[in-house]
Amino acid sequence: MVKFLEHVDLDTAWSIIEKRISPLDEVENVDLFSDDPFGNRRLAKDILSLRNLPQYPSSAVDGYSIMASETAGSSPATPVEIKKGFFAWVNTGGPVPQPFDAVVMVEDTFSGPETLKITKTVTRGENIRPEGEDIARGQIAARKGDLLTPSTVAMLIGSGFQLVPVARLPRTVFIPTGDEIVTAREWIKDGADGEGRVPETNSWMLKAIYRDWGYPLAIHELLRDDEDLIAEAVQKALGTYDLVIIGAGTAKGRRDHSAEVIMRVAEPLFRGVRMKPGRPVIAGISGNKPLIALPGFPMSSLVSAWSIVNPVLRRLSGEVPTVELGNAIGATGIQETKMLMHHSSQQGVREWVRVKCGEIEGTRYSWVLSGGSSSLFNTSDADGFSLLEDSVLEVPKESSLTVWLKKPVDWGSRIVYQGSNDPGIEHIVTFLRNRGGDMAIRSVGSLGGLAAIARGEGHVASCHLLDPQTGRYNDAFISRFEDSGQWTRIRVYKREQGFLVQKGNPKNIRSIEDIGRNKISFVNRQPGAGTRVLFDHLLKKAGLEPESVTGYNNIAITHLEAAARVSAGSCDLTLGIKAAALAFGTDFIPIAEEDFELVIPDRFRSHPGIRLLIETLSDEKWRQVVEDLGGYTWFF
Amino acid sequence: MVKFLEHVDLDTAWSIIEKRISPLDEVENVDLFSDDPFGNRRLAKDILSLRNLPQYPSSAVDGYSIMASETAGSSPATPVEIKKGFFAWVNTGGPVPQPFDAVVMVEDTFSGPETLKITKTVTRGENIRPEGEDIARGQIAARKGDLLTPSTVAMLIGSGFQLVPVARLPRTVFIPTGDEIVTAREWIKDGADGEGRVPETNSWMLKAIYRDWGYPLAIHELLRDDEDLIAEAVQKALGTYDLVIIGAGTAKGRRDHSAEVIMRVAEPLFRGVRMKPGRPVIAGISGNKPLIALPGFPMSSLVSAWSIVNPVLRRLSGEVPTVELGNAIGATGIQETKMLMHHSSQQGVREWVRVKCGEIEGTRYSWVLSGGSSSLFNTSDADGFSLLEDSVLEVPKESSLTVWLKKPVDWGSRIVYQGSNDPGIEHIVTFLRNRGGDMAIRSVGSLGGLAAIARGEGHVASCHLLDPQTGRYNDAFISRFEDSGQWTRIRVYKREQGFLVQKGNPKNIRSIEDIGRNKISFVNRQPGAGTRVLFDHLLKKAGLEPESVTGYNNIAITHLEAAARVSAGSCDLTLGIKAAALAFGTDFIPIAEEDFELVIPDRFRSHPGIRLLIETLSDEKWRQVVEDLGGYTWFF
Repeated sequence: MVKFLEHVDLDTAWSIIEKRISPLDEVENVDLFSDDPFGNRRLAKDILSLRNLPQYPSSAVDGYSIMASETAGSSPATPVEIKKGFFAWVNTGGPVPQPFDAVVMVEDTFSGPETLKITKTVTRGENIRPEGEDIARGQIAARKGDLLTPSTVAMLIGSGFQLVPVARLPRTVFIPTGDEIVTAREWIKDGADGEGRVPETNSWMLKAIYRDWGYPLAIHELLRDDEDLIAEAVQKALGTYDLVIIGAGTAKGRRDHSAEVIMRVAEPLFRGVRMKPGRPVIAGISGNKPLIALPGFPMSSLVSAWSIVNPVLRRLSGEVPTVELGNAIGATGIQETKMLMHHSSQQGVREWVRVKCGEIEGTRYSWVLSGGSSSLFNTSDADGFSLLEDSVLEVPKESSLTVWLKKPVDWGSRIVYQGSNDPGIEHIVTFLRNRGGDMAIRSVGSLGGLAAIARGEGHVASCHLLDPQTGRYNDAFISRFEDSGQWTRIRVYKREQGFLVQKGNPKNIRSIEDIGRNKISFVNRQPGAGTRVLFDHLLKKAGLEPESVTGYNNIAITHLEAAARVSAGSCDLTLGIKAAALAFGTDFIPIAEEDFELVIPDRFRSHPGIRLLIETLSDEKWRQVVEDLGGYTWFF
Repeated sequence: MVKFLEHVDLDTAWSIIEKRISPLDEVENVDLFSDDPFGNRRLAKDILSLRNLPQYPSSAVDGYSIMASETAGSSPATPVEIKKGFFAWVNTGGPVPQPFDAVVMVEDTFSGPETLKITKTVTRGENIRPEGEDIARGQIAARKGDLLTPSTVAMLIGSGFQLVPVARLPRTVFIPTGDEIVTAREWIKDGADGEGRVPETNSWMLKAIYRDWGYPLAIHELLRDDEDLIAEAVQKALGTYDLVIIGAGTAKGRRDHSAEVIMRVAEPLFRGVRMKPGRPVIAGISGNKPLIALPGFPMSSLVSAWSIVNPVLRRLSGEVPTVELGNAIGATGIQETKMLMHHSSQQGVREWVRVKCGEIEGTRYSWVLSGGSSSLFNTSDADGFSLLEDSVLEVPKESSLTVWLKKPVDWGSRIVYQGSNDPGIEHIVTFLRNRGGDMAIRSVGSLGGLAAIARGEGHVASCHLLDPQTGRYNDAFISRFEDSGQWTRIRVYKREQGFLVQKGNPKNIRSIEDIGRNKISFVNRQPGAGTRVLFDHLLKKAGLEPESVTGYNNIAITHLEAAARVSAGSCDLTLGIKAAALAFGTDFIPIAEEDFELVIPDRFRSHPGIRLLIETLSDEKWRQVVEDLGGYTWFF
């Protein structure tokens, strides 16, 4: 029995696609008068014009049809006069009547009541576009393989065609599967009440990708994880479609049937591609009909679509080259950048990375977004993507990274923020954009932010760091770094920090001392976060050891994520800001009011993005949004 | 009264657009479940997630939910055994049931009938994706101004949204005008019988451009050249649309009303842009509603759409930057090339040029296609476009030219042909493409072709040049050039040359001597064309001077174009091949059988395109096409 080739590298996968799949080479007609997009339509035959364009000797200018021979010797000083009946007005594009053999531009004439005076000697054929000059009947108007660009569409209509034969586009069906999945429509309809459900968003992502590519895509109904059911659907789909894609079921778990299904209905090609994410992608072929199983996590699904599905479609369409990743990604551009931060990759595996970008002191940087292939947010939020070579192990700071941009980046006015996670700051970006600025946020915690701007890795940091010695916020921490240059400090607001506990406080938590109690589980923030510094201070004051706190090493990166866990009941307690408690409806036990401030190296004070950010701090609309979040008090 | 700013440069036009037009800043909802393309949709508001993703603590792997504390000290050598009831199977994405606090991968376990053995020490939270890890309720899922990329569409659906507010796209109407114009539908329907008509293809070209851009476009019915009628239609359109485009009527002739119409209904902005073609474009504004009149010739209309209409749309959409020509053109890429041939431009005017491209001995070249802005064929046939700076006067051979490619070019296998125009050769390209090759044809005449390959400007030339001294074809001419390197000569076929005269030969032309007669008009081919060389020889033999031939200086570039003129009756006679006579149904008086041969510098013999071309010369399908053209006899 033929087996899957396991863990192939991308190049091998591409050469299998090239070798095992043949172009469809089928013809269908498109109606040039339809509203269809023709962007990736290619002629299937040479089109020979049915018409001459122009259809008749036509004037290239506004002027008078004349006999050229009558203008001999004519000049502004010695105009020739032509009698009525021996000239005729003609508009640009109009037919030059027989027997006239030239057109004189109106600018080269002046006329009396009955006569025309010509101030220029005109040669035979001058200003006449003879019939067939643009294209002659029988000439090849456009050729097999030519793309139907807008001007080719016009050319074909001009040649007398409404219907033209084009290469039939491959037809794809996507079959989403999964017991834990609900359809996107159910997900929207049912509200947030359901449990144990994952929305099926991959088919909608894929639909949008296919639209951008210009290929049709049908979506099959969502199927349960039932091998027979899926095999039957795939078998049936092979009768109608040129490419069948199974969504998910690509791992080796009990409910993963995609490989078995492909084995049952087709010849297996490969299983597992040495890339990350997207590794579990599976391919087979039945006749000339490829089957692909895409891994279920969003980022895995996306990169498998780019790197495997797109080459398959291009191959079926007869396109050369088969692999055009920038085209598959739908990149708005390619950008050479330098790494802002070090990134570790895995040798022997090509890694797809999501990046955000920003320009600092004339250098365009990008940094890799963390989070696994399950993270839809980072996938959506990324400015661009890059595919690391499999030989790459470490990508050090300042090394080069070529990025396929998926969104335009306004390099000149975007600033890079490194620091504390804060909902108010998350919201300010929109108001900054309204003013023509932009800001990319890295939530690295208060200490991380100060260190980053000290190293020149950002335009602005933020912090809310309690110095237990003095009881004062930020001063001691900032002065520790500030010798890297003069910094401007802007105290923006005070934030109320406190304990977030489940509604009604079922575990009856009142103070830090309660945390040591058994059965109380905590969710913490990452090292360097101001909130964690405060928590450590509280523990120390209470004489408690971190080890005594259940969940001390459970990390949430944002206040909202921590609040979400408390609200859902999987933790009892977190320390966080009042705004997060209000957003999730948890109970809130106030602990402290902290100074949240922005720190800006003085050399960036004239950066347009920084100037706009400082303006935006006084934007009443943003301030209203912050006040609605709750727990904030303004400094100015 | 406010007047048009006349003859502005492009930068001025763009700054007027920037200054005088404001972004629409209106909101509409899109349905993410619709089949609409979202490619250039931008969010009009921040979208705050309604859901936590994941919605519950979910497993990141296939394995068993366990209590992490029970695996302390576990290893392959010392597996821990867990009793039934104290573990539970969980699939990737499935909910981790309470009170379990970790998941162990199935690969790190083996199971007895009633117990689970674990070979790894697992930490609390391991392999669990806590609720809200991807996105938390209340978090900004996507921001005002963000493009609806495929992954953002998935993110928004995952956040609980079906309808999302986006910036309303500007609505445009295009109003074609012109007395000499017929609608494309009439043009197709009426066959080739009508006269004095030009097909209205611009609206279809513009529709395709708008589809590529992702903006909606409505097409108004075709209007006569009547100022009141057009003004009324424009006035009415201003009530419905954000941008009104008038097609044609931009010159200063009697029937050109676009400027007057814009003056009547709006404030004039500019008239005439210092570019070529596209110079006559006109703009005005009524409130915040721009009006544009596009010149009628296809290439003028196209470049005005790219350089004026697109920036207006981007401005109305609030896009920054406003001008992105590569994006407007819908370029598939930017290519640095060198000029294959010298090009003369006009100083003080930016010139749009159409180019074809080819790679010769490792250098990527482009050459400018001739033909005015009326040429639809060259516009459609071009590989790409370039916009010359207004300071450019001469663009010498080998100087740099940056090209926006509109079509993919297969650089490695495309060859450049310079030489005689021949319908058989025109057809061979398709069969060459079928084999994976490609060829760009420059019809420069037989002598021009030989000179070009002697200068290294092409891979293959063709000729059919009679040496009157010997009565032999080609030998003398080729040996004149061949010292530039060894050339391979391939005699492909003999072609019948003769006089093409109108059907029934109304002027009773029998021989070359008849040409001297009065009232017989001739259409010639360009200097260096083999057919012209033959004609000059015939004249000389008959003792006739070129000056005695009416129309000796009337030039057609191709056999078909010359035949079209004879067929349409605007000339009486041309010298050309039988295939052209057959295509147009003219009478044909045989004069000579000539050797048509290909000439290939030996250093290109190993070029993949040349090897494929030589193969294709024996392609039976191509040979059938050539035989159907008529008048060809094979050499081999």
